Amino acid sequence: MSIALVILAAGKGTRMESDLPKVLHPIGGAPMLVHALVSGQSLEPERVIVVAGHQAERVADAARDFDPEVQVVVQDQQLGTGHAVAQARAALAEFDGDVIVLYGDTPFVSAETLQRMVAARRQHDIVVLGFDAADPARYGRLVMAGDRLARIVEFKDASAEERAITLCNSGLLAADSATLFDLLDAVGNDNAAGEYYLPDVVAIAAERGLSATAVTCDEAETLGINSRPELAAAEAAFQARARAALLSDGVTMQAPDTVFLSWDTAIGRDTEVEPNVIFAPGVTVESGARIRAFSHLEGCHVSRGSVVGPFARLRPGAELAEDVHVGNFVEVKNAQLAEGVKANHLSYLGDADIGAGTNIGAGTITCNYDGVFKHRTTIGERAFIGSNTMLVAPVTVGSEALTGSGSVITEDVPDGALAIGRARQATKPGFARKLFEMLKARKARQQKEVG
Amino acid sequence: MSIALVILAAGKGTRMESDLPKVLHPIGGAPMLVHALVSGQSLEPERVIVVAGHQAERVADAARDFDPEVQVVVQDQQLGTGHAVAQARAALAEFDGDVIVLYGDTPFVSAETLQRMVAARRQHDIVVLGFDAADPARYGRLVMAGDRLARIVEFKDASAEERAITLCNSGLLAADSATLFDLLDAVGNDNAAGEYYLPDVVAIAAERGLSATAVTCDEAETLGINSRPELAAAEAAFQARARAALLSDGVTMQAPDTVFLSWDTAIGRDTEVEPNVIFAPGVTVESGARIRAFSHLEGCHVSRGSVVGPFARLRPGAELAEDVHVGNFVEVKNAQLAEGVKANHLSYLGDADIGAGTNIGAGTITCNYDGVFKHRTTIGERAFIGSNTMLVAPVTVGSEALTGSGSVITEDVPDGALAIGRARQATKPGFARKLFEMLKARKARQQKEVG
Amino acid sequence: MSIALVILAAGKGTRMESDLPKVLHPIGGAPMLVHALVSGQSLEPERVIVVAGHQAERVADAARDFDPEVQVVVQDQQLGTGHAVAQARAALAEFDGDVIVLYGDTPFVSAETLQRMVAARRQHDIVVLGFDAADPARYGRLVMAGDRLARIVEFKDASAEERAITLCNSGLLAADSATLFDLLDAVGNDNAAGEYYLPDVVAIAAERGLSATAVTCDEAETLGINSRPELAAAEAAFQARARAALLSDGVTMQAPDTVFLSWDTAIGRDTEVEPNVIFAPGVTVESGARIRAFSHLEGCHVSRGSVVGPFARLRPGAELAEDVHVGNFVEVKNAQLAEGVKANHLSYLGDADIGAGTNIGAGTITCNYDGVFKHRTTIGERAFIGSNTMLVAPVTVGSEALTGSGSVITEDVPDGALAIGRARQATKPGFARKLFEMLKARKARQQKEVG
Repeated sequence: MSIALVILAAGKGTRMESDLPKVLHPIGGAPMLVHALVSGQSLEPERVIVVAGHQAERVADAARDFDPEVQVVVQDQQLGTGHAVAQARAALAEFDGDVIVLYGDTPFVSAETLQRMVAARRQHDIVVLGFDAADPARYGRLVMAGDRLARIVEFKDASAEERAITLCNSGLLAADSATLFDLLDAVGNDNAAGEYYLPDVVAIAAERGLSATAVTCDEAETLGINSRPELAAAEAAFQARARAALLSDGVTMQAPDTVFLSWDTAIGRDTEVEPNVIFAPGVTVESGARIRAFSHLEGCHVSRGSVVGPFARLRPGAELAEDVHVGNFVEVKNAQLAEGVKANHLSYLGDADIGAGTNIGAGTITCNYDGVFKHRTTIGERAFIGSNTMLVAPVTVGSEALTGSGSVITEDVPDGALAIGRARQATKPGFARKLFEMLKARKARQQKEVG
Repeated sequence: MSIALVILAAGKGTRMESDLPKVLHPIGGAPMLVHALVSGQSLEPERVIVVAGHQAERVADAARDFDPEVQVVVQDQQLGTGHAVAQARAALAEFDGDVIVLYGDTPFVSAETLQRMVAARRQHDIVVLGFDAADPARYGRLVMAGDRLARIVEFKDASAEERAITLCNSGLLAADSATLFDLLDAVGNDNAAGEYYLPDVVAIAAERGLSATAVTCDEAETLGINSRPELAAAEAAFQARARAALLSDGVTMQAPDTVFLSWDTAIGRDTEVEPNVIFAPGVTVESGARIRAFSHLEGCHVSRGSVVGPFARLRPGAELAEDVHVGNFVEVKNAQLAEGVKANHLSYLGDADIGAGTNIGAGTITCNYDGVFKHRTTIGERAFIGSNTMLVAPVTVGSEALTGSGSVITEDVPDGALAIGRARQATKPGFARKLFEMLKARKARQQKEVG
Repeated sequence: MSIALVILAAGKGTRMESDLPKVLHPIGGAPMLVHALVSGQSLEPERVIVVAGHQAERVADAARDFDPEVQVVVQDQQLGTGHAVAQARAALAEFDGDVIVLYGDTPFVSAETLQRMVAARRQHDIVVLGFDAADPARYGRLVMAGDRLARIVEFKDASAEERAITLCNSGLLAADSATLFDLLDAVGNDNAAGEYYLPDVVAIAAERGLSATAVTCDEAETLGINSRPELAAAEAAFQARARAALLSDGVTMQAPDTVFLSWDTAIGRDTEVEPNVIFAPGVTVESGARIRAFSHLEGCHVSRGSVVGPFARLRPGAELAEDVHVGNFVEVKNAQLAEGVKANHLSYLGDADIGAGTNIGAGTITCNYDGVFKHRTTIGERAFIGSNTMLVAPVTVGSEALTGSGSVITEDVPDGALAIGRARQATKPGFARKLFEMLKARKARQQKEVG
C-alpha cells in the first residue's frame, strides 16, 4: 500500500514566546519538524506533504532542507486540524493509498509505532494513535468496544465514566486517502472555537458503517511541545535516550549527562567521550578515538586513534585521519589532517590540507582570509611548522620542510627546505632595568600629583 | 507608614567550615546578605540597618557595596536574636514607623511576602512570618487562635498536641519601632544558652494585651543556610528559579541546567544560550543574540545579532554593539566593539575601542600593559587587522587601514594605510632535511650511550 | 592476624561492549580494580593476589602500576569464582593467616566494612559479606540462625519463605587460608554451568562443623558493574560521594554537580571551585586558592592564593607556587611557576622554570620541541615577557629582563637586559585602501563571469 504523510506544521506556537515558528525550534540540533519527518520517512512514503501556515516560507525551507521532495501546502487561516489536513487534498488528488497524519510539534513518535498503525489499517478503515495517560487531564478519551474504537469524546462532553478512561487521543490518524477526504467534507465547525476538528472523522465514519481502531503507544512518544519549558523537557528526554543508546553501543562516557548529542551523531565502540563535550549536527567519530573534555564538534569526522581536546573546536569540514592529535585551544575548519598530524596548542587551521606526520607548532595560524577572498594552505608530509608560524594563504609548504618559529610564510617552501622570516635578536644590557625604573618613577610622580 | 529593615548578619556560621562570614557566601554571584537586602528594598524602606558581628568590617563593606545608605551596627557579643535586634535601637532612636526583622542567612523571602507582612500590620501589633513545614522537626510552632497568633512554643516546651502543628516560626517579624524596642526590654535570658530570643516578644505582647498574627509563606522562602551542602542546595534552587524565569520570558536554552545565572542577569527574548555558559554578575544580553557553548561572561553588554563563543570570555567593560562576532579562545576586557566587528579566533582585546565593521585577525593581541601602566588601543572602522598583529598601546590604527600578518604595531597607522613590520622570508633548500638528520643522529648516539 | 587479599579480576565483561577488560574501566580516574585495591590496602595486607584471566597482561600492568608488590596469578579458563580463588593456592602456600576475597568489579566496599569482616573472623571460621537488598531479585539469600549463617541458597533453589529473605550474598568472604583452600577442594561443579562456586564453601563448612556468619553492609558498597549504564551509575555515585566530602571539608563549590573529581583529588578548605572544572588524577590544591570555570587540571599542584582559569589547562608537572595567576587559554605542562607569576592569556608554558613575580605576556610560547628533542626554558624573577614572545628552548631569560613584544628569543638574555627581535614597522599611506579596492574589483569580475 502506498503511503502519504501529511504533517501539520501551521501553528504559531504563541506560548513559545518566540518569533521562530514553533515547529522550527530545535531538539538535538534539528527542528522538531525534522524529527517528525525522520520518523515518517521510515515508512518510505510515496508523498510527504507539510501543511505550513505561520511563517510558511521558513517552515517550507526547513522541510525542503531536510528532504527536497517534500511538498508544502499553505493553510492561510488556522481553522483547526481538520481544515489543515484538508489543505493537502489537491496535492493528493492523484494519490491512491493511505494517508498518515503527523504533527510537526510531536517529534518523538517512533517508526515502530507508525508501522503498527499501518499494519492495523489492514483490518480497519481508520486507525487512531492513542496513549495511556498517567494524568489524562483534558485530553480527548478513546472509547473502545473490544478492539474497535467506538468514538472519541472530548473531555468537556465526557461523562464521569468516560472521564475515567485513561486511553487518550494523540491526534495521529491513518486512513485511506479517498475515505479521509470524504469524511473531512462532512466535518463541521459548530463548536465554540468555530474550528474543524480532525477527530470528528471517527464519529462520521461510524455513522457510515466504517470501522475504526486505536493503536497504543508510550505516552512519551506523543509528547506535544507548546512552551519553552516543554521544549527543554523534550530536549532532555531526547538527550537521555541518545546517551543511553551510545552507552549500550559501547561508547565510554564518564559523565553521559554532560555530553550533548545531535539527532545524527554517530560514535564508534570504545571511543571515549570525556565530560562536557558538545556534538553539534553532522559529526561521525570512529571506534577507538578519544574526545576530551570541553570540546565542541560540528560537521566533522574523527578517525580511529585520534585524540581531540581538551578545549578543541572542530568546525564543519574538519576531517581527521587516524592518530591525529588536535589539542587545547585549537580550531580546525574545512581542513584535512592526514594520519598522525599533531596540532596540540593554540592554533587555527582553516582551509588547509596537512600531510601525514606533520607537526604543527603552538600558535600556528593559517591566514586564510585577505578581507575579500578565502585561500587554501597546503602542507606536505612530516613537515615541522615552528611555533607561531603565520601561513599566508594561498601557500604551500613541502614535505619534510621546516618553518622557523615566529615566521610569516608568504612564499611556497620546497620539500626539505627551511623557511624563516624573523628579525635577529638584539640584546641591550641593563636596558630593561632602566626602563622599569623610569616607568615606576613616572607612576610615583603621577600618584603624588593626584594625591 | 515608614519602614526600617533590621537585618541580622552577625553570626560566624561555624558549620560552613569557612573563614568567610556565613552571610557573605554567595548565591547567584551575590552574597546571601545582598539577596535579603534586595528583597527588603522592594518595601522602599526609609532605613536599612545591618547588625554585623563576626568579621563586622567585611560584612559592612559588602552591605555598603550594594547600597551605600545602609547603616551597620555591631553586635560585639552574640547573645541571641533579641539582643541582636536591640543593637539597632540607637540607630532607630529618631525613627517612627515599622521595623521588619530579616536575616542575612535567609536570602529567599520574596518581596510579595514582605508586602503581606506590612499589610497585616494594619490589623495587628506584631506580625510573625510562618511557614507550613513538610517536616516541622525542631522548629518553634505557631499556635494560632483564629487569625491571631496566640503564642510561639519552642519545640522542647511543646506538648504532643502542639508538636502536631506544622505552622512553624521563620523568625521574621514586623512591629512598630517603639513597641518592638519596649518589648525587647522585657525579654530575658533565663534559658540554657543564656541568650535573648526575639520570638519571646510575642508572649510579652500578649501579656500586655497587644495583638499578634502570622503571615504564611512557602517553606522554600524561609530556607536558612548553615552548611556548605545547604548552600549548594540553595544555589541550585536559585538557579532553577532563574532558569525557569528566562525560559518563560522566551530565552532559548537547549540545556538550561548547564547555564549558570547571576542575581542580576538580564537576557532578551529569542536570544539563544547554548549549553555550558556562565553569566557572572553584571551581564545584559539583548534580544536576538546568540551565546554559544563554553562561554564566560561578566560585567558586559551584548547587543542584538551578536554571536559570542564558543569558548569566549567577556570580562567587565566588554561592550558589544549589534552584529559583533567574538569567537573561540577570544578574551575581551574593557573594550568597545562597534557594530559588525569580528574577532573570531585566539585574540586578546583589552582596553580598546574598535570601529564598526573592523575585522580582527586570529592571534591579535592588544599589548595594553607595559609592566607599570595600562594603555588604550584605538582602531577605526572597516580596518583589517592581520593575523597575529601585536598592537602596542597606546596606539591608533585608522579606518580602512590594514596591518600585515605578524606585525608589531608601535606607531599610529593613518586611515587607509598599510602598516607592516616583519622580516622577509628566507628559504634555504634542503636545510630542514639536513637539520633533522643531524638531530636524529644525535638522538641515536645518545640512546646508544644510555643503552 | 596476617591478611592476604585475593582479588578476582579475570572476567571479560561481555556486557560492557568493550575491548578493555571490565575491571580496567575507570571510575574517578582509576580502574575499578584499583578502587578494590585501595579498600583492601586499608587492612595492611601482607599479600595481595590478583587473579587475572581475560587480557591478563593488561590487568597485571594496571595492578602493578598501582602497587608493584601485587602478585598476579592467571586463571586460564573461567570456571567459576571457586576455581578463581583456587588459582591463588600456590601463591599463598607459605602464607599463614586470613584470606579475604574481593572482586575487581565491586569497587565500593569500604575499609570500615572490611575491618568488620576481619573482626567477625575472631568468632567464626567463615565470614560472608551480605547486604539488605531493596529488590533482592535473583541474588543468593543468606539464611541466618541467630548470628550464625546457616546456609546460602541460590535463588533458583530457594523456597517461597527463603525468597522472602532480603539479606543477600555479596560474594565477598573471609576465612583462614588453610581452611579456605581445604574447603575449595571439596567444591564440585555439578551444576548447569559446570562451574565451581565460591559460596558453596559455606555449606561444606557447615557439614564439617565449622561456624560461619555474615557481616552486613549498605547495598551501595556491594554494587557490581556489568554494563556501561551500570558503570555510568557507579561513576555518578562516586562523584556524588566525593563532592559531598569536599563540601563537608569546607571547599566552596557553586555547582558541585558540574565538578568532576578523581579518586586522589585533594582540595583545601575555602578554596573556591567554580562550575565546570575537571580534576583528572594527581591534583592537589591548597587552601584559599581559586579554580575558575572551565578548567582542566591533571597531575599538578596549586598553592594558596593562586587563581587558575577560567579556561586554563594544567598538565602533569605544573607546579604553581603561592599567588600565581594562570588565566584563560593558557596551558602549563611540566613547569614550575614561582610565587606571584602571572600568565593571564593565550600562552603555552611547557618544560619551564619561571621565577617569582615574573609577568608572562599574552601569546607567549615556550618552543620546547625541535622535532626530536624537548628543551627547557628558564626565566628569572620579576622579568617581563612581552606579548607573543617565542622562547626557543634551551634558553634562559634573566631576572628583571624584558623581551619585546613579538620577539623570537633564541639567545640567553642577561639579568636586567632588554631583548628584542622584530622588524621595524613600515607604514605605506593609502596602500590598504588601494589593495581592498583591487581585491573587491577582482571579486566583482569573478562574480560577473560566474553569473
